[in-house]
Amino acid sequence: MAEAKIDLNSDLGESFGRYKLGYDEDVMTYISSANIACGFHAGDPVVMDYTVNLAKENGVGIGAHPGYPDLQGFGRRSLALSGDEAEKMVIYQIGAIQAIAKSLGAEVRHVKAHGAFGNDTQQLTEKGQEHLAIALGNAVKKVDPSLKLIGFMGSRAVEIWRDMGLEAAEEIFADRAYNPDGTLVSRRLPGSVIHEPEKVIERVLQMVMEKRIVCHDGSEIKNINADTICVHSDTVTSLELVKVIRAGLEEKGIKIERF
Amino acid sequence: MAEAKIDLNSDLGESFGRYKLGYDEDVMTYISSANIACGFHAGDPVVMDYTVNLAKENGVGIGAHPGYPDLQGFGRRSLALSGDEAEKMVIYQIGAIQAIAKSLGAEVRHVKAHGAFGNDTQQLTEKGQEHLAIALGNAVKKVDPSLKLIGFMGSRAVEIWRDMGLEAAEEIFADRAYNPDGTLVSRRLPGSVIHEPEKVIERVLQMVMEKRIVCHDGSEIKNINADTICVHSDTVTSLELVKVIRAGLEEKGIKIERF
Amino acid sequence: MAEAKIDLNSDLGESFGRYKLGYDEDVMTYISSANIACGFHAGDPVVMDYTVNLAKENGVGIGAHPGYPDLQGFGRRSLALSGDEAEKMVIYQIGAIQAIAKSLGAEVRHVKAHGAFGNDTQQLTEKGQEHLAIALGNAVKKVDPSLKLIGFMGSRAVEIWRDMGLEAAEEIFADRAYNPDGTLVSRRLPGSVIHEPEKVIERVLQMVMEKRIVCHDGSEIKNINADTICVHSDTVTSLELVKVIRAGLEEKGIKIERF
Amino acid sequence: MAEAKIDLNSDLGESFGRYKLGYDEDVMTYISSANIACGFHAGDPVVMDYTVNLAKENGVGIGAHPGYPDLQGFGRRSLALSGDEAEKMVIYQIGAIQAIAKSLGAEVRHVKAHGAFGNDTQQLTEKGQEHLAIALGNAVKKVDPSLKLIGFMGSRAVEIWRDMGLEAAEEIFADRAYNPDGTLVSRRLPGSVIHEPEKVIERVLQMVMEKRIVCHDGSEIKNINADTICVHSDTVTSLELVKVIRAGLEEKGIKIERF
Repeated sequence: MAEAKIDLNSDLGESFGRYKLGYDEDVMTYISSANIACGFHAGDPVVMDYTVNLAKENGVGIGAHPGYPDLQGFGRRSLALSGDEAEKMVIYQIGAIQAIAKSLGAEVRHVKAHGAFGNDTQQLTEKGQEHLAIALGNAVKKVDPSLKLIGFMGSRAVEIWRDMGLEAAEEIFADRAYNPDGTLVSRRLPGSVIHEPEKVIERVLQMVMEKRIVCHDGSEIKNINADTICVHSDTVTSLELVKVIRAGLEEKGIKIERF
Repeated sequence: MAEAKIDLNSDLGESFGRYKLGYDEDVMTYISSANIACGFHAGDPVVMDYTVNLAKENGVGIGAHPGYPDLQGFGRRSLALSGDEAEKMVIYQIGAIQAIAKSLGAEVRHVKAHGAFGNDTQQLTEKGQEHLAIALGNAVKKVDPSLKLIGFMGSRAVEIWRDMGLEAAEEIFADRAYNPDGTLVSRRLPGSVIHEPEKVIERVLQMVMEKRIVCHDGSEIKNINADTICVHSDTVTSLELVKVIRAGLEEKGIKIERF
Repeated sequence: MAEAKIDLNSDLGESFGRYKLGYDEDVMTYISSANIACGFHAGDPVVMDYTVNLAKENGVGIGAHPGYPDLQGFGRRSLALSGDEAEKMVIYQIGAIQAIAKSLGAEVRHVKAHGAFGNDTQQLTEKGQEHLAIALGNAVKKVDPSLKLIGFMGSRAVEIWRDMGLEAAEEIFADRAYNPDGTLVSRRLPGSVIHEPEKVIERVLQMVMEKRIVCHDGSEIKNINADTICVHSDTVTSLELVKVIRAGLEEKGIKIERF
Repeated sequence: MAEAKIDLNSDLGESFGRYKLGYDEDVMTYISSANIACGFHAGDPVVMDYTVNLAKENGVGIGAHPGYPDLQGFGRRSLALSGDEAEKMVIYQIGAIQAIAKSLGAEVRHVKAHGAFGNDTQQLTEKGQEHLAIALGNAVKKVDPSLKLIGFMGSRAVEIWRDMGLEAAEEIFADRAYNPDGTLVSRRLPGSVIHEPEKVIERVLQMVMEKRIVCHDGSEIKNINADTICVHSDTVTSLELVKVIRAGLEEKGIKIERF
């Protein structure tokens, strides 16, 4: 039986000073959760204020989107932080956006790690990397344990966070090919990103209604448990895709709602 | 009649990454309020965590010390911000340190603008500059109106903040010469900084017990109302001065206590 | 008699990391001098490399475009630097782009201060500000006195640089209204920017062929001596204007050539 | 037979703005090559100017010391750069210090990668990391192929650079324990750093005069070829060690001279 609702989350507030990025005003009308940059990899206090307000006005869930302190690399280059550095960096960024939210009469309700920090936290290729997932969980626990974390579906990070007593939403990617072990096919490989809107919506419906993913090699992951779908908003094409996904889901009676 | 108590405030947490600055561990045992850098002109998340914890352990009042985003200039170079930019920048920095404090079971209770931002906010040389004092007040009002502001004694900024319904503590400088209008003698002029410990403590006692300041030109400002004395902690000499000031005050039965 | 040639200069290379700004590829085909951001207010090493190469391929003169270290403010917010800080900051930025140019078999030939640094250097409202114009001149003199400076037409800065034995090109603005003293009408006043392409080209032809400017108040500045016209490239509209200006000049037989 | 001369190199110019680090004035009188920070991991234009001038006055060889753009981490945290990003970043930093040097009538003669960038360039743990050593070599080749590179003794990076036609000096560490394969014993292991001055000078003399290293496990690396010894200058202790090393070498008739 089909699930009655799903969350759509997107990375927003990625402009900086004079630099405008993304179609935030548009995409905000289609999603239910916004991951808002906190000034380290993108965003600045004025942009954050604008974006949090936009989310509030659209009834979209406000999320902190902490990233590595690397504006030039847009937070997409791994930076070898200690657990202590990562934990404090996350606390700092959560606090900054919480204050912005408070100043607007709004509230932060979730946290999602950005870019390379997200990958390093969740694609644990070796035991040693767990320190970042733990740091992120500790940061949330210390600042406000009612904040919900978003993590890759089935990842060790989600497990770590739940073991800490935190709430974690499991995320799937609408337009990315999967390996049979639940990891994403590397962007360097052909077919890693699915561009055709019909295929994307077909996959999304499989994921949400039939709880299965058809993998890159034709095999299937079954009985998946996804709480939120990650969509993009930084290009015209990605914005179009969000509209298609939303329309496709609603057509099947699935409500777009915060996890 | 002598006032029974006074606050001593100092700028702390000004280290950054590998760079160590100040005698925070020592000075924290002599003061009652710490203005802690928030990562824009000095400080980083790890340093903030360390310093807030140090304040907590010493029972020292924790203050946000927002500054211009200018690490190279240590926040001492004026940067022409709009009121909107200044307001959001302050909200961001307050939030960051509030989260650090919360993660340590502590709480931020005051806000003091740093360096050039402090001067630009309070030494209003023309009508047009009021926008920064207003921005600072608005930031506090929107984030948490129970936060107390520290401002130069008798400054227009203090007036502005009180008109907004905010609480403002008036600050005097132990080792600086005053002009008859209550402004500080420019550091460029001879005699602007008082170095002799005996003279400093004599002046402090006049200010606190007799509520008067003997100005640079020999004239007096009477019936002053000071809530807190600014002391420094970045050199060995300044640390020695803090000890002398505290001892001198306590000898006269004046308690060092948060404003 | 009409002058046979004029230079067109534009600010380019203002992208940063993931952030794309401007129509550099297009505008580069219409101008003769490019002022390329050096990583302080905009630009990064990869963007600089790309832009310098683009200039080289289009036979456009390569210029260093040093600005204040303020990416968030895009170098448009005044920062109170000492002369020493300004001089070293300019030397650093010139060196960085010289090395990029050298690595591409190209050469930097001019220097133009960006944004607020440009204004602070050239719109000397008081004696005290001359230190920035002097700092800029000293930087050029020490690094390579054969580098040409671009300065506001008739400004004190141009005079200062020439007194230092440096070569300075005088710059006019195609789309800005002038005051009778040769300064620009403040952007805050109505009519400060001229938007109609026909009016802009009419004014440009007056400036270049008749050596006069019709001011905001109807009066005229005569016998002007302009070496280069500043054009913009950050919006579609400004790009269109560049095309109109170039076409209008060429139609009158005026060659677009480096100063 | 003992070698008649050796170079002593040290990382200098690591102060930043208000932050003072190291004993540059002292150590500059004992060494023959200074690796000067270029503003990315440490240093700023004013500090660079001061330090380059100090090197010039002491007749010390001036080196660019490019690092990752990570002031908070002091360039000691690996940042996953592409080869293109690394190459341009190095060109930029070399150019910046070349201009500073030129403005002082001095010249940059060598390049040494800093901190994590140095390790990532030279401790190639997998094939894939070669891109950084290649990027560094390419940067030097494109900017000025007469610049000499400093690399870990016997490292793959030295080989790569020489294959490019560049000159590379091989570096040994006075106070670090070695593994039999010529790599350094990890700082995490006991005995990795040698603190006793007598032991350090004994080892240095073995390395320079007898061309051998006694490894951590008692085995020996023979017939080594070292051009320069890396010494430190950021603590009082390290400064003392530099004096001891210099005195010990000179006592044996070995001249301290640029490689």
